[in-house]
Amino acid sequence: MKRPLITLLTDFGLKDHYVAAMKGVILGIAPEAQIVDITHEIGAYGIAEAAYTLEQAVGCFPEGTVHLVVVDPGVGSSRRAIVAEVGEQTFVAPDNGVLSRVLRGGGIVREITAMHWFRQPVSSTFHGRDIFAPVAARLSSGGLGESREEVGPVIEDPVRLEEAEPREMAPGEWTGVVLKVDGYGNLITNFEAEHFRQITSGGFEMRVGPGVIRRAVTRFDEGLSNEPCAILGSARLIEVFVNKGNAAQLLDVLPGAKVRVKLKSRRWF
Amino acid sequence: MKRPLITLLTDFGLKDHYVAAMKGVILGIAPEAQIVDITHEIGAYGIAEAAYTLEQAVGCFPEGTVHLVVVDPGVGSSRRAIVAEVGEQTFVAPDNGVLSRVLRGGGIVREITAMHWFRQPVSSTFHGRDIFAPVAARLSSGGLGESREEVGPVIEDPVRLEEAEPREMAPGEWTGVVLKVDGYGNLITNFEAEHFRQITSGGFEMRVGPGVIRRAVTRFDEGLSNEPCAILGSARLIEVFVNKGNAAQLLDVLPGAKVRVKLKSRRWF
Amino acid sequence: MKRPLITLLTDFGLKDHYVAAMKGVILGIAPEAQIVDITHEIGAYGIAEAAYTLEQAVGCFPEGTVHLVVVDPGVGSSRRAIVAEVGEQTFVAPDNGVLSRVLRGGGIVREITAMHWFRQPVSSTFHGRDIFAPVAARLSSGGLGESREEVGPVIEDPVRLEEAEPREMAPGEWTGVVLKVDGYGNLITNFEAEHFRQITSGGFEMRVGPGVIRRAVTRFDEGLSNEPCAILGSARLIEVFVNKGNAAQLLDVLPGAKVRVKLKSRRWF
Repeated sequence: MKRPLITLLTDFGLKDHYVAAMKGVILGIAPEAQIVDITHEIGAYGIAEAAYTLEQAVGCFPEGTVHLVVVDPGVGSSRRAIVAEVGEQTFVAPDNGVLSRVLRGGGIVREITAMHWFRQPVSSTFHGRDIFAPVAARLSSGGLGESREEVGPVIEDPVRLEEAEPREMAPGEWTGVVLKVDGYGNLITNFEAEHFRQITSGGFEMRVGPGVIRRAVTRFDEGLSNEPCAILGSARLIEVFVNKGNAAQLLDVLPGAKVRVKLKSRRWF
Repeated sequence: MKRPLITLLTDFGLKDHYVAAMKGVILGIAPEAQIVDITHEIGAYGIAEAAYTLEQAVGCFPEGTVHLVVVDPGVGSSRRAIVAEVGEQTFVAPDNGVLSRVLRGGGIVREITAMHWFRQPVSSTFHGRDIFAPVAARLSSGGLGESREEVGPVIEDPVRLEEAEPREMAPGEWTGVVLKVDGYGNLITNFEAEHFRQITSGGFEMRVGPGVIRRAVTRFDEGLSNEPCAILGSARLIEVFVNKGNAAQLLDVLPGAKVRVKLKSRRWF
Repeated sequence: MKRPLITLLTDFGLKDHYVAAMKGVILGIAPEAQIVDITHEIGAYGIAEAAYTLEQAVGCFPEGTVHLVVVDPGVGSSRRAIVAEVGEQTFVAPDNGVLSRVLRGGGIVREITAMHWFRQPVSSTFHGRDIFAPVAARLSSGGLGESREEVGPVIEDPVRLEEAEPREMAPGEWTGVVLKVDGYGNLITNFEAEHFRQITSGGFEMRVGPGVIRRAVTRFDEGLSNEPCAILGSARLIEVFVNKGNAAQLLDVLPGAKVRVKLKSRRWF
């Protein structure tokens, strides 16, 4: 039998015992589980950041992986807990939009009502340990078809974050956003491969913060020193980077910053 | 055979090779071991913080787990190295009080004298790699009953930190302490479930730093914005929190801060 | 069959999905792999720091371990990707000098040309995920002798960092460097055990930043409060430390700082 594979994505940080508590609960139920941390350094309560980070990691994991996501500012409130099946992967999370991006192509979502699976007593402040971890462990190790139906009823209205796709404000003029600043200071925008094809087929101007980007390249080392450039990154999204530098620091840009793109072929400048 | 499960708790941080060195030694001896990090972000030499963090994690791990704790400011000195059996779990640590809290209910403690188990040559500065890791690996993978006796002689006087339980200074007036500030800025105090029952059965006033807390709730989302409240946390200890905020920053409070509680029913205000 | 053991060493940090993406790719190919993080907190593009950290960890890992190193400022450029065999361990890395220290005693180095092993499509910005992770996974799980030859042709000229060994500037007077500041603030120099024997056999003076060190000890607890001392550390290199303190902060010293040593027996002072 293949080893169960479970990932964890939280905003717990690494200083406290919270992540280990969840792992202990998982390994008590599924001793053979392979556990992989996606990250625990999501900003506190950072649902949108978690949704993006999860989406990026998921495509690298094999079929059968169970992803456990606990970014849960509403813990203890009436927000639902859910299990989603997307393709051959399973997601266990609070119903607060953190699965929005992985659910963009559809999926089956169930509300978790299988209280007999929970760790008792269930606290009001740490559902990661008491609800999500045992549910993920059981889904990973059990007979999958059967277990998923035991989770609870299918629901049609999971919470979704507003879609953050670039908008065309005028012919050839688009407005988007910086989804994330990664550890190198690269600005990951919500412009996709299709937009990249457009900007590389003619001249363009991209503005973010005080920066004006006029060059799109295909390798980091094509960028000059201190020159912010655009590239189609490993996430298949347009990134603004500085070769061996830090674009976010150079331009003083944070996640959520507005990104404006004008295409030269539309004679906008 | 069930896979051996070993946890690590240190103040090594994650920048250096120290944690990986211990894992390499463990896996050289016990290749099937499942290794879980509790945390490596204990403040340098933070014995009390480690003792608390360990206690919180332990209850989530299954029988047979070996916990390896290396917060060891006295490395290379004459301080003893010990193995403790508590319930069905095993602890390997320097004898400096870091096991105080898990030993509160008793346990069998042995001094480690099994030098033939050590990694040679034994350095004077990294017993985590040379003594504790190989001992933990051998205890996890061997026949447990036999191995533990081979560790060394039972001792009756392991070092214990002063117990940090709240004191009743006058009828209805208690003084305690902030044991830990977690990653969300929640203040975890040493007041326990029994105290929580008392404060929720009548009015109370809790003072910590400049903060005055008069509301005890059972869910985070009952707290108002910027209102510090008391809750019985997942550790079964009273915590001071701010709903979707950071109590430690709001009140400018650090671990070790004094916490005073007065019960209204005793007519103290 | 023994479980494959793979370590990871990168400058990716822990906030992003990059490390998890590599782990997902590895576990898709080698589901039984045991993955150990050496560190992901190498300073961005810190090749020398990574080379040192890798060398320190390697000696603790068992035969058959595959070490995956991705500190890769030249990703997407024409720099080669390589696999090195040193003793019974295997290294997968960009050819930028990051393997310099583990290759000091020799080894067989191959350029990776086995494109049919890569994850498709290969991005220009994330070879960790698309090239290095699948190559490491295949080398760890496959029949080793055969697989290594499939990697690509042996090369004789891998990139090497300049050797950083202390130089004798005059009889009894040496100049070296701080290789690394560890998480405790200990200054790890490039002076080795041989130098330590010399300084402990007579008087000496070591200068680093504003600090003057005149005492060499064998245990941390021999140092006085606020007294920087020299010790032969767990890496078999001379370290400057402050007992229960932070030498780097006390002396305001960074990696790369010059270290000068004079031997008293040579009558230099």
